Amino acid sequence: MRRDKRLAAEFLGTFWLVLGGCGSAVLAAKFGGDGNPLGIGFHGVALAFGLTVLTGAYAFGHVSGAHFNPAVSLGLWAGGRFAGKDLVPYIIAQVLGGLLAGFLLLQIAQGQPDFAIDGSQAGAFASNGYGALSPGGYSMAAAFLCEVVMTAMFLVVIMGATHGRAPAGFAPIAIGLALTLIHLISIPVTNTSVNPARSTAVAVFAGSGALGQLWLFWLAPFLGALVGGLLYRWLGNEPR
Amino acid sequence: MRRDKRLAAEFLGTFWLVLGGCGSAVLAAKFGGDGNPLGIGFHGVALAFGLTVLTGAYAFGHVSGAHFNPAVSLGLWAGGRFAGKDLVPYIIAQVLGGLLAGFLLLQIAQGQPDFAIDGSQAGAFASNGYGALSPGGYSMAAAFLCEVVMTAMFLVVIMGATHGRAPAGFAPIAIGLALTLIHLISIPVTNTSVNPARSTAVAVFAGSGALGQLWLFWLAPFLGALVGGLLYRWLGNEPR
Amino acid sequence: MRRDKRLAAEFLGTFWLVLGGCGSAVLAAKFGGDGNPLGIGFHGVALAFGLTVLTGAYAFGHVSGAHFNPAVSLGLWAGGRFAGKDLVPYIIAQVLGGLLAGFLLLQIAQGQPDFAIDGSQAGAFASNGYGALSPGGYSMAAAFLCEVVMTAMFLVVIMGATHGRAPAGFAPIAIGLALTLIHLISIPVTNTSVNPARSTAVAVFAGSGALGQLWLFWLAPFLGALVGGLLYRWLGNEPR
Amino acid sequence: MRRDKRLAAEFLGTFWLVLGGCGSAVLAAKFGGDGNPLGIGFHGVALAFGLTVLTGAYAFGHVSGAHFNPAVSLGLWAGGRFAGKDLVPYIIAQVLGGLLAGFLLLQIAQGQPDFAIDGSQAGAFASNGYGALSPGGYSMAAAFLCEVVMTAMFLVVIMGATHGRAPAGFAPIAIGLALTLIHLISIPVTNTSVNPARSTAVAVFAGSGALGQLWLFWLAPFLGALVGGLLYRWLGNEPR
Repeated sequence: MRRDKRLAAEFLGTFWLVLGGCGSAVLAAKFGGDGNPLGIGFHGVALAFGLTVLTGAYAFGHVSGAHFNPAVSLGLWAGGRFAGKDLVPYIIAQVLGGLLAGFLLLQIAQGQPDFAIDGSQAGAFASNGYGALSPGGYSMAAAFLCEVVMTAMFLVVIMGATHGRAPAGFAPIAIGLALTLIHLISIPVTNTSVNPARSTAVAVFAGSGALGQLWLFWLAPFLGALVGGLLYRWLGNEPR
Repeated sequence: MRRDKRLAAEFLGTFWLVLGGCGSAVLAAKFGGDGNPLGIGFHGVALAFGLTVLTGAYAFGHVSGAHFNPAVSLGLWAGGRFAGKDLVPYIIAQVLGGLLAGFLLLQIAQGQPDFAIDGSQAGAFASNGYGALSPGGYSMAAAFLCEVVMTAMFLVVIMGATHGRAPAGFAPIAIGLALTLIHLISIPVTNTSVNPARSTAVAVFAGSGALGQLWLFWLAPFLGALVGGLLYRWLGNEPR
Repeated sequence: MRRDKRLAAEFLGTFWLVLGGCGSAVLAAKFGGDGNPLGIGFHGVALAFGLTVLTGAYAFGHVSGAHFNPAVSLGLWAGGRFAGKDLVPYIIAQVLGGLLAGFLLLQIAQGQPDFAIDGSQAGAFASNGYGALSPGGYSMAAAFLCEVVMTAMFLVVIMGATHGRAPAGFAPIAIGLALTLIHLISIPVTNTSVNPARSTAVAVFAGSGALGQLWLFWLAPFLGALVGGLLYRWLGNEPR
Repeated sequence: MRRDKRLAAEFLGTFWLVLGGCGSAVLAAKFGGDGNPLGIGFHGVALAFGLTVLTGAYAFGHVSGAHFNPAVSLGLWAGGRFAGKDLVPYIIAQVLGGLLAGFLLLQIAQGQPDFAIDGSQAGAFASNGYGALSPGGYSMAAAFLCEVVMTAMFLVVIMGATHGRAPAGFAPIAIGLALTLIHLISIPVTNTSVNPARSTAVAVFAGSGALGQLWLFWLAPFLGALVGGLLYRWLGNEPR
C-alpha cells in the first residue's frame, strides 16, 4: 500500500478514536447531571473507546496495520513488527488526526449553550491527569505506574492476537476489547490514556493544567509499550 | 438473488432496526422513571441499535447486502459498491419497513395505560431533533455537523470492513458495533439518526415538531454518506 | 450424534439459559435496592440471557444444534430445518433442563435470609406476565403482540445466520446477541419470554399468578416461531 | 512450545485476569460513592473479568492454552485434554501471576489518599466470601453450591467451545463471555470466584476474614471443574 494511504488511514483511525472515545466522554457520560442513569457513565465510555479501535481496525487494518496510537507504533517497533523508518511519520499522522477530532468535538460540544471547559476540573474535555486532575484523586506515582502497566499489557495483547499462530481475523476484536478493559479499570486513575495522541488531542483544548501534565501521558505509555513489545518478542518467538 | 427477495430483506432489516433501536428507547430506556437504574439508558439503546444491524446483517447480508438505511445505500453507490438502478427501490423498501415498525411499536407502547406522545419533548417516540428537540439542547448547526461526520465515518467503516482485503465474515460485527459507537457519542446531540428511514419511521407518529425537522435527518446523513463513500473509494483503492 | 447426547445437550443448554438469564434477574438485577446502580438492571439481564445462548451454542451447537427453546425447535421444523420426529423429545428435554435450573436457582436464592417470592408482584422469580404481572403494566394484547413479533424475528435471525450462504461460525454470536436485543426491547412489556421452557421453568416456583398466565408464553412464541420460520423459508430459499 | 514460555504465559494471563477483573472492582465499580451511576457497577466488573480472558486467550492461547485458572487446568485434565504432569507447574504459575497483580493493584489503589481495606466488609479488595462476607449475605451452603455449579458450567463451555467440531477461532469469545455471564449471575452471592488463583491473589491483602474463607474458593471450584470436565468428556465424545 502506498505510504500516503497508510498515513491517511492512521490519521482517520486516530481521528475516530478521539472523536468516539473522548466524544462519548464529553457529550454522553454525565448526561442529565449527577446521579442520572441515562448517561453512559465510565462503562459506556470504556465501550466507546474499545469500539473505535475494533471498528477502525476492521476498516483500516489492511491499509496501515491500524495502530492509531504512537505508543503502539513504538511498541510494535520494539517488538520487531514495525519498520523504524515509518515510526515518525505514523506518529505525526496520529497526532494530527487526533487534533482534528478534538477541534471538531469542540465545535459540536459548543452547540450546547451552557457548555464550558473548566480546566481546573479533573477530566475537563476528556483530558488525562493525575493528582488534582485525576478523576479519583490518584497520585502522580500511581498514575505513572498504572499507565505503564496498562500500556505494556495492551502491547502484549496486540502482539499476541496478531501473532502468526493466533486465529486469523479476530485481532480487532481482541485489541479493541482490550482497550475497553483498560478503560474499565483505569478511568478513575488517569481518565485512561495509554495513547499520547489521544491525550494531546484534548489537552490543547482543556487548558494549562492538562498541558502541564501531558509529559506523563507520553512518557509512561512509551515506557510501557517498550516493556510490552520486548516481553512479547521473547514470549512469542518460538525456535523451530 | 431475485430482486423481490432483496427488497423484502431490506424491508425486514429496516423493520428490525427501527423496532429494536427505537423500541428499546421508547419502552425500556427510562423504565421506572427518572433516576431509576433499572432502565437501560442511552448505553442500552446504543447497544440495541447496533445489535439490530449486527444480527440483521448476519441474517440478510447474503440476501440484500444488509443496508437497512438510505444513507448507506447512497454512500455505497458513491463508493462504487452498489448499482444506481437499485438505489430508489432499496430506499422505498427501507422507508416502508421502518414505517411498519413505527406503527407496530405504537401498538405495543399503547398497551401501557399511561402512554402518551408529547411531541413538544425532545426525543418523543424516539424521534430525532435539534434545538429545542435535541435531548441535550444542541443547536441546529451542531446537530448538522454531528450527523454529517457520524454518517461519513459509518460509511468508511462499512466500506473498509467489507473490503476484499478485510477478514471475511466479520463485517457485521464491525458495522453493527460502529452503529453502537455512534449512538454512544451522539444520542445527546440529535438522539442519533445517521439513517433517514429510521428518522422518518418515528417522526410521522411523533408529531409536527419532529416532522418539521425531518429534512435535516435526510440531508445531513446523505451528505455524510457521500463524503464517506468517496473518501474510502480513494483510500481503499489500491493500484496493482 | 447419538440421540441421548443430543437430548442431554438440549437439557444442559436450556438449564444454562434459565440459570443464567433468570438467575441474573433474580440475584443481581436490583442488587442493593431501588436506585442502586451497582445492580445490573435490565441491561445486564439482557446481556446475560444472550450470553447463555452465545456460549451454549459454541459449546453444544455441534452436538444438538443448540435450540434451548421449544419455540425455536418448532420454528426450525416449520422452516424445514429440523426433523418432526425430534420435536417432542427436544421440547421435553428443554422443559426438564429449565425446571432443574429453576429449582437450583431457588436453592441459591434462599441462601439469602430475607429472600421471598411475592407472586403478586410483576416479574416475581423472573416470571413472565401481562397486565398486573407485566413489569410496565402492559395489556394482554400488547404482550401477545410483542411476544409474537419478537419470536418471529428471533427465528428469522436464527435461520438467516445459519443459512448456507451466511459466514460460517458466527451464528452463535448473531443468535445470542439477538436474544440480548429482544430483552433490551421487551423486558418492560412481558419480562421477555420468547421461550416457553424459560417461562415454565420459573412459573412453577413463582405461584398461581404466573402459572395462570403461562398459556400466553407458549401460544405467542409458538405462533411467532411459525411465522418467522415460514417467512425465512421463503426468503432464504434461492432457486438455482 | 518450551515449558518456560508456557508457564510465563499462564503467569501473565492470570496476572491480567486479576489486575483487570479485581482492578475494575476495586478502582471503578463504586466510583463517586453510593448511588453514583458513573461507576461501572457489577455489570462493568463482569464485563472486565470476561474481557481479561477473551483478550488473554487471543494473546496467549497459542502459547499455553490460556487456562489462567487452577480449576480450569484441573477440569481439563479430568476431561482428558491436559497432561497431568503439567498440572502443578501451571497452578503455581497461575497463583504467582495473580499474587503479583494483587500486589500491583494495591500499589495503584494506595495512590488515592483515602484508600483503605476494611477486611470486615464483604468484597473488601475484591475478595470472595460467604455469610457475612458475601456481598448479598448469602449462606455458606448457597455460596458453595453456586461456585460448584458455575465452575462446572464454565468447564462445559470451555471444553465444548474448544472441541474439534466447534468452529475454530471463536473459543476465546465464548469462554471470555461465559466468565462475564457467570459474574452477571453470581457477584451478589460470593463476589464470584470460580478461580482459586483469583481468590488467593486478593485474599492475602484483604485480611484474615477473606483468608479464613479461602478454602471454599479452592474446594468448590475444584469440585465443579471435575464435574464439568467429566460431564463434557462423556457428552462430546462421539464414537465413530
